[in-house]
Amino acid sequence: MGDSWKIFEDRFSDRDLARRESLFSIGNGYLGFRGFFDERRPAYHPGVFINGFYELTPIHYGEHAYGLAKYNQTMLDLPDCRYIDITIGEEDFCMSSSTVEHYYRELNFSTGILRRHVKWRSPSGISADMTWESLISLSRKHLGAMRFSLKTEPGIPVRVRSTIALPSERPRDEYDPRVSTRLMRPPLQQTGDTYRHHNGYYEMTSSFHTLESRLHLTCSALHRYDKDVFAAVEDNEFTLPFVTFTADSGTFTLEKCFYYHDTDSPDHQVPREEADASMDLAASLGFDGLAAEQKQELDRFWDACDVEIDGDDALQRALRFNLFQLLQSTGTDGRTSLAAKGLTGGGYEGHYFWDTEIYGMPFFTFTCPKTARSLVLYRMSILERARERSQELSQRGALFPWRTINGLEASAYYPAGTAQYHINADIAYSIFQYIDVTGDRSLLTEGTAELLFETARFWADLGFFNPRKGGTFCINEVTGPDEYSALVNNNFYTNAMAKYHLMRASDEAEHLKTAEGEYWNALCAKIDLKEEEISFWREASRRMYLPYDTELGIHPQDDSFLQREPWDFAGRPKEKYPLLLYYHPLVIYRYQVLKQADAVLALLLLHDQFPWYQRKRDFSFYEPLTTGDSSLSACIQGIVAFDCGDVDLGMKYCRDTSLMDIEDLHRNTKDGLHTAAMAGSWMSMVFGIGGFRMEGSVPRFRPQLPESWKMLKFRVKVRSSLLTVIITPEHTVYQVSGPPITIRHRSRQIELTDEVTVETRPALRGVIFDLDGVITSTDEFHYRAWKMLADREGWDFDHGLNMHLRGVSRRESLMIILRHNQVELDEATVRTYMDEKNRAYRESLHSLTRDDILPGIEDLLSQLKLQGIQTAVASASRNAGFILKRLELEDAFDFVVPAQEVVRGKPDCEVFSRAADALGLFPEECAGIEDAAAGIESIKTAMMKAVGVGEAVTESDNDLYVPDTASLRLEDILKLFE
Amino acid sequence: MGDSWKIFEDRFSDRDLARRESLFSIGNGYLGFRGFFDERRPAYHPGVFINGFYELTPIHYGEHAYGLAKYNQTMLDLPDCRYIDITIGEEDFCMSSSTVEHYYRELNFSTGILRRHVKWRSPSGISADMTWESLISLSRKHLGAMRFSLKTEPGIPVRVRSTIALPSERPRDEYDPRVSTRLMRPPLQQTGDTYRHHNGYYEMTSSFHTLESRLHLTCSALHRYDKDVFAAVEDNEFTLPFVTFTADSGTFTLEKCFYYHDTDSPDHQVPREEADASMDLAASLGFDGLAAEQKQELDRFWDACDVEIDGDDALQRALRFNLFQLLQSTGTDGRTSLAAKGLTGGGYEGHYFWDTEIYGMPFFTFTCPKTARSLVLYRMSILERARERSQELSQRGALFPWRTINGLEASAYYPAGTAQYHINADIAYSIFQYIDVTGDRSLLTEGTAELLFETARFWADLGFFNPRKGGTFCINEVTGPDEYSALVNNNFYTNAMAKYHLMRASDEAEHLKTAEGEYWNALCAKIDLKEEEISFWREASRRMYLPYDTELGIHPQDDSFLQREPWDFAGRPKEKYPLLLYYHPLVIYRYQVLKQADAVLALLLLHDQFPWYQRKRDFSFYEPLTTGDSSLSACIQGIVAFDCGDVDLGMKYCRDTSLMDIEDLHRNTKDGLHTAAMAGSWMSMVFGIGGFRMEGSVPRFRPQLPESWKMLKFRVKVRSSLLTVIITPEHTVYQVSGPPITIRHRSRQIELTDEVTVETRPALRGVIFDLDGVITSTDEFHYRAWKMLADREGWDFDHGLNMHLRGVSRRESLMIILRHNQVELDEATVRTYMDEKNRAYRESLHSLTRDDILPGIEDLLSQLKLQGIQTAVASASRNAGFILKRLELEDAFDFVVPAQEVVRGKPDCEVFSRAADALGLFPEECAGIEDAAAGIESIKTAMMKAVGVGEAVTESDNDLYVPDTASLRLEDILKLFE
Repeated sequence: MGDSWKIFEDRFSDRDLARRESLFSIGNGYLGFRGFFDERRPAYHPGVFINGFYELTPIHYGEHAYGLAKYNQTMLDLPDCRYIDITIGEEDFCMSSSTVEHYYRELNFSTGILRRHVKWRSPSGISADMTWESLISLSRKHLGAMRFSLKTEPGIPVRVRSTIALPSERPRDEYDPRVSTRLMRPPLQQTGDTYRHHNGYYEMTSSFHTLESRLHLTCSALHRYDKDVFAAVEDNEFTLPFVTFTADSGTFTLEKCFYYHDTDSPDHQVPREEADASMDLAASLGFDGLAAEQKQELDRFWDACDVEIDGDDALQRALRFNLFQLLQSTGTDGRTSLAAKGLTGGGYEGHYFWDTEIYGMPFFTFTCPKTARSLVLYRMSILERARERSQELSQRGALFPWRTINGLEASAYYPAGTAQYHINADIAYSIFQYIDVTGDRSLLTEGTAELLFETARFWADLGFFNPRKGGTFCINEVTGPDEYSALVNNNFYTNAMAKYHLMRASDEAEHLKTAEGEYWNALCAKIDLKEEEISFWREASRRMYLPYDTELGIHPQDDSFLQREPWDFAGRPKEKYPLLLYYHPLVIYRYQVLKQADAVLALLLLHDQFPWYQRKRDFSFYEPLTTGDSSLSACIQGIVAFDCGDVDLGMKYCRDTSLMDIEDLHRNTKDGLHTAAMAGSWMSMVFGIGGFRMEGSVPRFRPQLPESWKMLKFRVKVRSSLLTVIITPEHTVYQVSGPPITIRHRSRQIELTDEVTVETRPALRGVIFDLDGVITSTDEFHYRAWKMLADREGWDFDHGLNMHLRGVSRRESLMIILRHNQVELDEATVRTYMDEKNRAYRESLHSLTRDDILPGIEDLLSQLKLQGIQTAVASASRNAGFILKRLELEDAFDFVVPAQEVVRGKPDCEVFSRAADALGLFPEECAGIEDAAAGIESIKTAMMKAVGVGEAVTESDNDLYVPDTASLRLEDILKLFE
Repeated sequence: MGDSWKIFEDRFSDRDLARRESLFSIGNGYLGFRGFFDERRPAYHPGVFINGFYELTPIHYGEHAYGLAKYNQTMLDLPDCRYIDITIGEEDFCMSSSTVEHYYRELNFSTGILRRHVKWRSPSGISADMTWESLISLSRKHLGAMRFSLKTEPGIPVRVRSTIALPSERPRDEYDPRVSTRLMRPPLQQTGDTYRHHNGYYEMTSSFHTLESRLHLTCSALHRYDKDVFAAVEDNEFTLPFVTFTADSGTFTLEKCFYYHDTDSPDHQVPREEADASMDLAASLGFDGLAAEQKQELDRFWDACDVEIDGDDALQRALRFNLFQLLQSTGTDGRTSLAAKGLTGGGYEGHYFWDTEIYGMPFFTFTCPKTARSLVLYRMSILERARERSQELSQRGALFPWRTINGLEASAYYPAGTAQYHINADIAYSIFQYIDVTGDRSLLTEGTAELLFETARFWADLGFFNPRKGGTFCINEVTGPDEYSALVNNNFYTNAMAKYHLMRASDEAEHLKTAEGEYWNALCAKIDLKEEEISFWREASRRMYLPYDTELGIHPQDDSFLQREPWDFAGRPKEKYPLLLYYHPLVIYRYQVLKQADAVLALLLLHDQFPWYQRKRDFSFYEPLTTGDSSLSACIQGIVAFDCGDVDLGMKYCRDTSLMDIEDLHRNTKDGLHTAAMAGSWMSMVFGIGGFRMEGSVPRFRPQLPESWKMLKFRVKVRSSLLTVIITPEHTVYQVSGPPITIRHRSRQIELTDEVTVETRPALRGVIFDLDGVITSTDEFHYRAWKMLADREGWDFDHGLNMHLRGVSRRESLMIILRHNQVELDEATVRTYMDEKNRAYRESLHSLTRDDILPGIEDLLSQLKLQGIQTAVASASRNAGFILKRLELEDAFDFVVPAQEVVRGKPDCEVFSRAADALGLFPEECAGIEDAAAGIESIKTAMMKAVGVGEAVTESDNDLYVPDTASLRLEDILKLFE
């Protein structure tokens, strides 16, 4: 195995200590140790955590208001069972650059073992060679182990002191809201400890409980050591007693296996038998036994989840690091979840956010559905509290807390907390995705349906049919994912997700009613669910208001986003990022500036609800406004960049999300790893480069391999079919194990039973024609109609000016003529004149016949048909249908874009993109043929191959240029796709 | 003097204790004592305060953000120099319903003395008759005094213990944001005390300093007692030592004069000489001397400020109570101000808000301008901190803190704190008002100009010219006065006030430049003020965006107010008010519900910028949506109700604001008196009932005496002229002392040199005519034009349907015809048809001549002219001018309302109201003549006398009805005004 299976360091540096502690974290989703040294010094934050083990502290508000969250929850620093401290001769060992002669530390993703090797020369000159290894068992929830070995000159006394070390004070930054709070008093109270020799081991056990949350904890360490070592207990006034091991033979080995057991609810005691069983296991397995199991467990994990990259070693390692850390941080017991920083630091207090569902879950849903299921079970375990919270907010249904461990809202700043109601839809989305992908509907009747309905209910009550917005369903005073805006009306993301949630919930209700009548009746009785409610959900979903700006043709982030002042990106100092640390919220909220993907995230999650040109236009609008100050931003921006065909930008973001912690890009890795970004790096590979999406029940791939890469390989499981996808520059291989499955490679459908190899690059599957000047020339008809009007009004107009009207809408054509003549007209007259011109023009069109089809076009169309390549007409003309009819071409094309539906005409990409969409094709599978510069720009923005015809376009602007339609050859167009 | 000069109680009740403590407060604007008993028990909050004497405590945020206020400031409870405790026989005296045989307590507004009399029967049966009197000197800032006398059976030992009592813990309500916070540790540290016999008095002095704010305090009590009384010092482990006075002669008298001196800035010591001087004064004046001065001071106060009411004793007393308490609470030293609760309680921490400027200052500006000036000086003293705060918020200029004592922002909830930027404009407004009313421009060059410009600068930087709102100047993300909305765009109040502020600031800048060149140059250099900035202010003011909804014809409170869901006033439980104590802000902010006057306040402050019909329409819209949960609401709603002619509603609000504390209407008088509401009660009288406004430099009155009242009398000072206004049902008397002055009684201008008596009720000063059917009948012309169209289109139309078109706009007429025929047309066709009808109608009008003037109209017009009564035409017809010309009446009227400017046609009051406005008249001075029901409704909504003509109106709807125009008689109309 190469370097990509581990991270390592070979130089000790004080400066890197804090962030390296996070990077070298080990854990198993239940128990987590930051990568601090076993001797706990020097250390930044020697944190030991149990997922979901927290203390409560009251939140103080300068000014209280009704319904604000009352208690904070903090994931506690726990006693450290791994701790040992070494004295050689008379000197205490400690890492320092002056005494460490050789240093190497690695965390191995394939063995799951953290290993440190040190050659130490003590200040007085004694040399020692020491190795520490440790692991937290991925197979045994409660167990961990360390092994220490030392070699020095014989006769030198070596003393190793071991204890269960009490937590030290946690570092803190009062002015960074992302760092955890300090607790006012030590929250852990010791309730007892025992020390004993037992079966030849030395065993120490200690029990604790918390003051406010009233949770119990028992942890224990079992020492296994050489026979010639002397062991003794040594009391000590500040911490628990030490066990001291002494030897002077020149070598020394000590193994310490340990367990942690906590209780899952307040006031419960730790079950003695379970703890004893853990102790027996620790004794029987020892370090080697646990290490062997660890390797097997990881082999299984990598087999299902690995992503292989050929062509970028740094990314390859980062990806494996990220997935490994994700595995280590994610709770799988159905009563815990995945915290923002996992089990790797105190940042965000160990709270669970929406990150779990929207960022973490896709990886698990597609590779380890069992873990995804347990994350859903966690949400079900706190449903009752979500219901209570909703009531506290005077709403029906259930509202999940924005940040929590135990299910109570812990956000002390509601504008970027409770107001982020979208978490309800995020949770529902992840459950629907889980069901769609795995086919496992059993979750629904195990209680998840109740969750989906109670959260849908919340939306129905929160919004209202707004007469001031045409009776659409509006949701006011919310905060979307982007925390640089707060308390807005109709956040696009929130409304789009609520729309989806409500529709799916009503669909599931219908389904359950017929398929699971008994369960359905019981549920309706339990939560007093009525038929009318379900119709209301459907209606609210159908009439959901999604903000749209016709001027820009984009979805504004919310009702007032475009009313904000532009942020002066160029003029504001670069060092004042992240903005949240340098500007008052009142400043930030006033500008068109984003912390993170918001509308763009909806474009990814609900990709099939928005046509490609719309996704691209929205993305192009938001991309320059997005600071990426949130670690949740990069992966989403990157995937949508890929979707829009911008591989370079996609890769920049892919690197940002993948290397975020390894390269400490956000300068706060010290407080813990960014689990959402880590999971996002998997999405970058699979959704970004692999272009993977579920299209209904069909997995679809749309590979875009970066230029220098030789291969990307990943696996996804859809229902019972495990798919392996291997993308190389030339070919893409799809393999399935399990049942055969229908997949798509771009628009091409493939029935996969075993393995299929296809070309990676897109094939030509559609040709999209402009009308005027390509299929026929109505140029002269337009000219004459405008000329008639111009002459009547006494305006200057000639063929030269007419050139400027090509590919331009009727209104804009008139405007060009008016501007040229410096004439201003009122709206009514403008419309009258447009009508008049059109009437004259249409009148003249009656003279068109089949003979007016331009040369070569009919030939090209029949060749395309022969090859099975689809065709469409993308014209700005509202008369297109009429003209085609006159030309007897009304059945010659697979699709004609209805011009009246087009929001933005050429040079925007919309009209060509609509044509491709209607043909069921991706832009890169199409070529467009145009005779006007605006049209060519439209084709290129649509990411299609551009074929230019005639004098109004230039050769250099096009992928292919022909002087006239007679010169159009299919083989030339096909060449563009080779 | 009657009962209206005091409040009193004659029954002791535990239940009323807390709020009575607030009501019986005594103070002098510097020093304040709540009305607790001298023995400090039983007590709710035995608070002693010095205005502006505070401690700092850090504000903890659950989640910190950049720029949030860092420290709270709390007005401290101080040591109590007045304290004495009584033992009779062996029994400690204490108020309790079982032992108190007779009880009487009064606070007298004319003597300024708080007096308590108790007949006590001790548990063992000893009787004693006791009187306590105390005062805080209104003439001597630092001094106060108490006098105690007792009578019991001779031989009974009486022991009186006196000390400077240390403050007890303050009551607190964690979940009511309006109550003060508890300090974590005792903030006052004692630095020394002295006890001595001196000149025959017993003197005790004690000094303190605060820990964080580092302020110093010295207070002292001087005991004067009978010769036969034995005095001794008695140490005591919890508090300061006691001085104990013992006597057994059956009578006992003790006087205690005391002073308080603090420092005005951190770390400064109290000047010894000033404290000594206070001691000497106390010794020489004694209680009687101070009481005599107190009476003189109050005589002067009442002479300038009293409001006399004949007809409502409860209101009379409440008014005097309010003004007296306002006097007692307002700082006059230029370094303190008027706190929300004055010096009467711990509510709102003793902070100064915008209340001072917008609610408190008008009373002082119009009656005691010296005090108003000192309030401005306070703001100037914290300008530097306002500048620093602005910088912290990344803005230019200065931003005053939303709540503060020492000038630093102390609001811990910025959405209803710092975001209320309007405080900048409020302060500026009060300064402009002070200058306009007093004529005292010296303030400007003493530094106020700098304040006005730095705060104007802030607006210029905060807003921007918004291309999405037609390039108007928009101010986003602010909170207006109404705290049930937060963080909105373009709050109407804020924008309107900023517009005023910017315009006045640029005017003052121009003025200073020419009038005070030297000062101007120095100021420009000091604050780097540029010419371009001043032009920018003017431009921003000119182009300020004021939200307006043409559908409702109102000013929405902000950009999204009308997008909110209506609040279900009927369906929500009555006991859940104030809403802030029962609903999460996220709920409240989502509804069309107001805590307090917001847009309506702008209608008062900037009354001359909005026509009367607009004020009325806005008020009618907001009035039902306003909960009045804020104590700032009632007075404003009331005054604007008077403005809109609704005396009953005005009086309801007037009572609410006047009796707020006396009747504890907001159920929190216990935490202190509502100083803004108290000052608001003065405004209710003078601005509400008196209808007083400054119209430019001219004071104008518009009396509306409530029905049962016999008289209202008040005084206002404008420049050097002291006006006395006496309103009775029949007559209003205006007196002036000082220079003669021009005033207005409604629209009538009066040159006042001494005294003028006028009729209180309005006189007829204008008659406003409908056109169609009153001046001439174009009914048939209209009918024929519509008929022509209807016949052509095949629609049903006859004279019957035509009746419904009277007084109705062209568009609405067509709509009526279309609805009748169940026809729907697109907008373009509607416009075409409207044009066609109008063309036909106008064509036919050419046949009109002078002969078509309806009978009697010309006569009436000439009679009106003879009597000097103005006339106008209020018609919905855009052809009015044309018709009047054809009738040769184009010069017969003083004004013709331009129909195309009217936003809402009849039956809205706009068109008649516009006519009155243009004539410079108030609605109650006008009569309107109409032949259509919609027109009559319009007149009545406009609060004019309605004269109905002809068959389409009924007799009962009108003030006067005539069957035809020939029957119109001026004498009948005049009778309506008798």
